[in-house]
Amino acid sequence: MDFIKKLDGGFSVIDNLNVSGASEGKYGVCIIHCPNSTVSGVFTSNKVVAAPVKYTKNVIKNGVVSAVFVNSGNANCFTGEQGIKDCETLVNLVSKDLNIPFDEIAISSTGVIGRKMPIDIISKVAYDSISKLGNTAENSLAAAKAIMTTDTFPKESAVEVTLKNGKKVKIAGITKGSGMIAPNMGTMLSFIVSDAIIPADYIKKAIKKAADVSFNMIVVDGDESTNDTCLLMANGASGVEVVENDEIDSNFQEALNYLCIDLARKMARDGEGATKFIETNVYGAKSIEDAKLAAKSIISSSLFKSAVFGGDPNWGRIVSAIGYSGAELNPDIVTIAIGDESDDVDLVRNGEILAFDDTPYLERAEKIMQSKNITVNINLNLGEGKATAWGCDLTYDYVKINAEYTT
Amino acid sequence: MDFIKKLDGGFSVIDNLNVSGASEGKYGVCIIHCPNSTVSGVFTSNKVVAAPVKYTKNVIKNGVVSAVFVNSGNANCFTGEQGIKDCETLVNLVSKDLNIPFDEIAISSTGVIGRKMPIDIISKVAYDSISKLGNTAENSLAAAKAIMTTDTFPKESAVEVTLKNGKKVKIAGITKGSGMIAPNMGTMLSFIVSDAIIPADYIKKAIKKAADVSFNMIVVDGDESTNDTCLLMANGASGVEVVENDEIDSNFQEALNYLCIDLARKMARDGEGATKFIETNVYGAKSIEDAKLAAKSIISSSLFKSAVFGGDPNWGRIVSAIGYSGAELNPDIVTIAIGDESDDVDLVRNGEILAFDDTPYLERAEKIMQSKNITVNINLNLGEGKATAWGCDLTYDYVKINAEYTT
Repeated sequence: MDFIKKLDGGFSVIDNLNVSGASEGKYGVCIIHCPNSTVSGVFTSNKVVAAPVKYTKNVIKNGVVSAVFVNSGNANCFTGEQGIKDCETLVNLVSKDLNIPFDEIAISSTGVIGRKMPIDIISKVAYDSISKLGNTAENSLAAAKAIMTTDTFPKESAVEVTLKNGKKVKIAGITKGSGMIAPNMGTMLSFIVSDAIIPADYIKKAIKKAADVSFNMIVVDGDESTNDTCLLMANGASGVEVVENDEIDSNFQEALNYLCIDLARKMARDGEGATKFIETNVYGAKSIEDAKLAAKSIISSSLFKSAVFGGDPNWGRIVSAIGYSGAELNPDIVTIAIGDESDDVDLVRNGEILAFDDTPYLERAEKIMQSKNITVNINLNLGEGKATAWGCDLTYDYVKINAEYTT
Repeated sequence: MDFIKKLDGGFSVIDNLNVSGASEGKYGVCIIHCPNSTVSGVFTSNKVVAAPVKYTKNVIKNGVVSAVFVNSGNANCFTGEQGIKDCETLVNLVSKDLNIPFDEIAISSTGVIGRKMPIDIISKVAYDSISKLGNTAENSLAAAKAIMTTDTFPKESAVEVTLKNGKKVKIAGITKGSGMIAPNMGTMLSFIVSDAIIPADYIKKAIKKAADVSFNMIVVDGDESTNDTCLLMANGASGVEVVENDEIDSNFQEALNYLCIDLARKMARDGEGATKFIETNVYGAKSIEDAKLAAKSIISSSLFKSAVFGGDPNWGRIVSAIGYSGAELNPDIVTIAIGDESDDVDLVRNGEILAFDDTPYLERAEKIMQSKNITVNINLNLGEGKATAWGCDLTYDYVKINAEYTT
């Protein structure tokens, strides 16, 4: 895809955009100041919805935001009416300090559920963060760091895309998430800004399409969060318009998908306690939906994830996970392969088992399973559906991190 | 339920029944010799089905079995035509040695998937097992031990039930299973024999009803196996008939449910690496189905299971797990409590959070979370549906056991 060029510097590649991050103890605040941007978002489907999700869904109905406030350390979830009041307090702070309309500010939170927002300390960190707003690569990195919880590294990505009409626009984003990551997003927050001019009707479709092939295809532990938020803003700084028109936007959509997949893969790689990264490609499924089911089922299997941690080529667990995924499957014609950077070996080919005990296939598989990057390739040989999912191994440290989180 | 009396001795309480178990290395064989018993079973819903499951489904179509052969150490799954031939070889061995019809012998296997059956060693252990058949408590225990894989203790249960007509019948069973335990059974094998006379039409319904409230309500890791088998046999040794008639059988069904729940709880307690046992009771759901979804979702949450291991009263993870379970939920009216043998504390009462930081509620919750037996009680306050599910914590040892299993 030579129309997509990766860029360094995160948000700093976008003009007319200032961001910042500040932290104190476990509390962080990130500010994204993007005046008069069109906006759309996708949110958690959990029936328990955090206050900032309710609040922000309402704000973006108008289709325009000028700033996003994000805090880590407290999810402001299951906090009743006080939770919404706390959103208003923080939004008011940003509105006054940046002199932007109250109803053009989105808010997101991540952290522990069911604890009152420590509004004093978060306000203090917010003022600190706002005072640091800027357009440098350091600003972007500080923003990505401020939204981390159990993440071990900040996650940002930026691309330039050449549209079919030759014009160029940029997209940049940051994300956080490493536990409570499930299909349909898990605890992840993601904020993406493009300098394109994107009208309301297309921006909604664009982010939905991109989230479906990226954030909705990663699994760390199968727990879906109450706070998931992914916002796409377009501030128009490039002066270039992107509309829903295959002649123009297909490159933009590809680039947005690419950026979201890059961010999603970073989250999977940073899965709580992870030592290995797993990519599962399912081909030949009866439908795309079936391919997604099978790919996510493998990535979600605690047994397979434990086997990957131990470097054990126990491919029976792959077979079993496809079998209970709900996808159509004929074991007599399936092909299962695993690979890494240097090898790729069929374990089962068109239903025939190659990797019995003491075969060279199993020996090669054992070697591959020692790798830090494992790819599982499945061909169901039933149709044209294909999908890719990403995840990580299940380790002692996942348990340790989550046994110790709140107290 | 004073019509149910717990008995010791497992299968030895049933007349006209001989059982045995023998092992060599990781291979075990259990024989259940129950001439001319009516039979029914429930099996895995995984689309990858092991050879012995296919074989046994066919055998029990006639409604009569005289023996069950069970081996551990190899699942005989994904083994193609050879897998069915291996079933026939082992059934033939039992048929000749015990002089019972070839088509009245069921077979079950558990162990690694995708490896050829080591038929020589399993035949050897089978002869050894057959030579030990008998009706003692030791025989029953040996049978329960022979089917273990990663189980840490043998699981058997026996009851006597007084029917509404005053007559008495007995039910006894053994089970294995500790990993790959998911709703809809996981890798579990369970064999139950009653000395009642149970006609074909009722025996089918009886085992389905009992499995739905017991084996289908435990979760260890959410991985559903390819080999799950639960068989109920009735050898009629008591001379007492049980038919589907509320006046007579409701006590029998209650007792069968009780026995299956007892076996299921033992599996959850022996979950791979488990240090704590969790029971989740959901009341007030809009439907029984909703209650089951919510109860199983909590028991399945890796985050909550890790929190239980760490003794962390992170009840936000309970809320979140109900929220993504698919069950109807109104967070504003839900009640959430946790308890152990000596205390029971509301964390959220009718939507109001009691367990904020530094409240006595949270202190009590922290103490409860140190217990080995934790009960989660949820009232959704939406209807009459209720359900109970059982599970265990997620520990370092779960990962260790499954990182090291095959190699």
